[in-house]
Amino acid sequence: MSEHEPEHVVVAGAGLIGLATALELRRRGAAVTVVDPQPAWGATRAAAGMLAPVAETQYGQERLYPLMRASAAEYPAFVERVTAATGLPTGYRTEETLVVAADAADARSLSDLASHQLASGMDVEEISTRAARSLEPALAPRLGGAVRIVSDRQVDPRMLAAAMVEALNAPALRTIGEVPDAGPATWLTHRVESVRVTRTAPRQATGVQLDDGELIPADAVVVASGLSANAVGGLPEDLDLRLRPVFGDILRLGVPDSVLAPGEEHLLTRTVRAQVLGRPVYMVPRADRTLVLGATSREDGRESVLAGGVHQLLRDARAVVPAIDDCDVLEMMARARPGTPDDLPYLGSTSVAGLVISTGHFRHGILLTPVASRLAAELVTGVADPDVDHARDPEFLATTDPARHSGPHDDPHDTVHVPGGPA
Amino acid sequence: MSEHEPEHVVVAGAGLIGLATALELRRRGAAVTVVDPQPAWGATRAAAGMLAPVAETQYGQERLYPLMRASAAEYPAFVERVTAATGLPTGYRTEETLVVAADAADARSLSDLASHQLASGMDVEEISTRAARSLEPALAPRLGGAVRIVSDRQVDPRMLAAAMVEALNAPALRTIGEVPDAGPATWLTHRVESVRVTRTAPRQATGVQLDDGELIPADAVVVASGLSANAVGGLPEDLDLRLRPVFGDILRLGVPDSVLAPGEEHLLTRTVRAQVLGRPVYMVPRADRTLVLGATSREDGRESVLAGGVHQLLRDARAVVPAIDDCDVLEMMARARPGTPDDLPYLGSTSVAGLVISTGHFRHGILLTPVASRLAAELVTGVADPDVDHARDPEFLATTDPARHSGPHDDPHDTVHVPGGPA
Repeated sequence: MSEHEPEHVVVAGAGLIGLATALELRRRGAAVTVVDPQPAWGATRAAAGMLAPVAETQYGQERLYPLMRASAAEYPAFVERVTAATGLPTGYRTEETLVVAADAADARSLSDLASHQLASGMDVEEISTRAARSLEPALAPRLGGAVRIVSDRQVDPRMLAAAMVEALNAPALRTIGEVPDAGPATWLTHRVESVRVTRTAPRQATGVQLDDGELIPADAVVVASGLSANAVGGLPEDLDLRLRPVFGDILRLGVPDSVLAPGEEHLLTRTVRAQVLGRPVYMVPRADRTLVLGATSREDGRESVLAGGVHQLLRDARAVVPAIDDCDVLEMMARARPGTPDDLPYLGSTSVAGLVISTGHFRHGILLTPVASRLAAELVTGVADPDVDHARDPEFLATTDPARHSGPHDDPHDTVHVPGGPA
Repeated sequence: MSEHEPEHVVVAGAGLIGLATALELRRRGAAVTVVDPQPAWGATRAAAGMLAPVAETQYGQERLYPLMRASAAEYPAFVERVTAATGLPTGYRTEETLVVAADAADARSLSDLASHQLASGMDVEEISTRAARSLEPALAPRLGGAVRIVSDRQVDPRMLAAAMVEALNAPALRTIGEVPDAGPATWLTHRVESVRVTRTAPRQATGVQLDDGELIPADAVVVASGLSANAVGGLPEDLDLRLRPVFGDILRLGVPDSVLAPGEEHLLTRTVRAQVLGRPVYMVPRADRTLVLGATSREDGRESVLAGGVHQLLRDARAVVPAIDDCDVLEMMARARPGTPDDLPYLGSTSVAGLVISTGHFRHGILLTPVASRLAAELVTGVADPDVDHARDPEFLATTDPARHSGPHDDPHDTVHVPGGPA
């Protein structure tokens, strides 16, 4: 980690990870300026908030799992800090996740994945569909199979973001060790046009230029602006962030009294994920008696909610929980998650001193928030949290090196070697 | 028709029919006050605007059809007046309607209805599904049958309502004959709490009381407030308006470039109605390249958009026009139409002089707007439009008598005869 102690850090991007990074920087004594034209309005606003290191683990993601598990382990202390600073709730809930399969073929693939997860040491348990229905009576009578994932959690990203904004605005904060608190964050509702970097070696970040031309001097810059990182100028020329938008359609449903039995408080008591004819769908119950429905994933560049996506979500959800039909549609939205070629984030330092990248968290941005914000803040300030086990941090940062997809391109029409690119 | 010439008329309700009635009153020289807490925000806002006296005709609605046909005939002159007063468009379009059947069983019921309609003298033509697809290439390849309804039209209720508001605000209006124009309408964004009526015979409407207690004196009152007519106090005690809310879910989709062939301007060029496994669905193309999707009908009292309704609309629409999947969901809403026991409106005078009722237009409010507004305005002012054929007006008013469901109830627990109730 760097030894310099910056006084003023600009965080570009106020999604959940940008906000959490700013908060971690403030805890470590930095004066923080947060720059975002519309804080918490991107993927954060849509996200269901499942903290599912197990349920989200797929074949071939073995390098991602340790990072996800570490972040899940840091979550309780993370949300406790946010709540302690503000008194605001974060929607953190510790109910398990139930995964169900619609038919026999779905059940086979669910069972195969569960075996794979069990072999990887994850806490999953196959149960009978009868047992699943006794846990969640709203489930359809004819299902193919069911698996419990006891260790999965959830948070409400909108509540968590609102609480972090409050924490950043709070006049005083519990900081790390003897580090003096530089005070509340400064907010600029602008877009970062470019990062300012010294022209001569050793190259060093000196601030940012906003979209209105204003220069904001800083000792360090964290680029946590999701897909917008693609549009930030001034990044090292040898740095190739291969971010792509992976869109999803999300519905929010209201559960009316009429579908609840006497004494029931919600249609579901825990997150239910399902495989329906090979397609995933999830239903996340919230404390305000809403259900968040999602799981479509498309890379068509369409920023609007698609009729086909809405149809698919409702068709598959009602196949598993028939009472979905009687729920109120409160909201539908589409958002893009910042995808990377290997589904791992771009998280780490760059060849420019004082410039840290934290983006590409893809479908795991909410889960990875504690670990990603902590690592970025530590890289910038050199101040570590004594309450955290830092043993695997170097391994994580090697895995998430922002420069790992840089260097010579495969495109035969573009074979110029970029000087200074990593091997 | 009444012989008195009121100077000041209150119209309670600014849906399409209330607005049109106010405009017709103004044309006939009355000073008009329009009272509505949220003009054009009820069924008008949701309506697809199909002017479909044929396609909307069902078995057993023979008494409704002459009224629908007469109103369709008055539509061109009606929209021409609105446009002439304001220069604003109304979205009136004269394209035919295509009705398709999803499978063989749907085709049989469609064909039976077409025969019934033909026998009633309506302008319908059964065509091959191949011919239907050559008219509308976006139709699914495997359909059960198709019928053309050449005489159906459409209007954009939101545009028409906006144009009528402008016409009511216009400083001068082309009026009927030598009648002097009393000038722009007065708008009160309130709810009518009750109609004020003289206590002694002959009973006469004297104005309205608003929800804030204010009294608005008037020479006549038209209650055109849709379902809210149920909540208006002061109506004759012997008048029993059996209005019930019939809800529908409506989607508005945007058609992206990607689904259009070169040179195509829209996914559909005419209104397409369909029967899918016995369920109706309609798709109305608008000039702004949107599609209005609807047809759910429910009497469950739920004022929100239901997930089951959205699912049904999308499932059935994509079965007939597969490219629906690629359209953007721009808006969804639910609204209630004011239903009556016999599907005929409550339109006519009452036992109180100067009190006219115009509600219960159910699924035909947009189509019935010209004839309903004209009849109500004529009942109030006694001034007739010389350009209209009035031959069937008495027949219409006999059919739509607001008092026809009044009188002794069938309920054995409620057999008290209401004095003064009609036979």
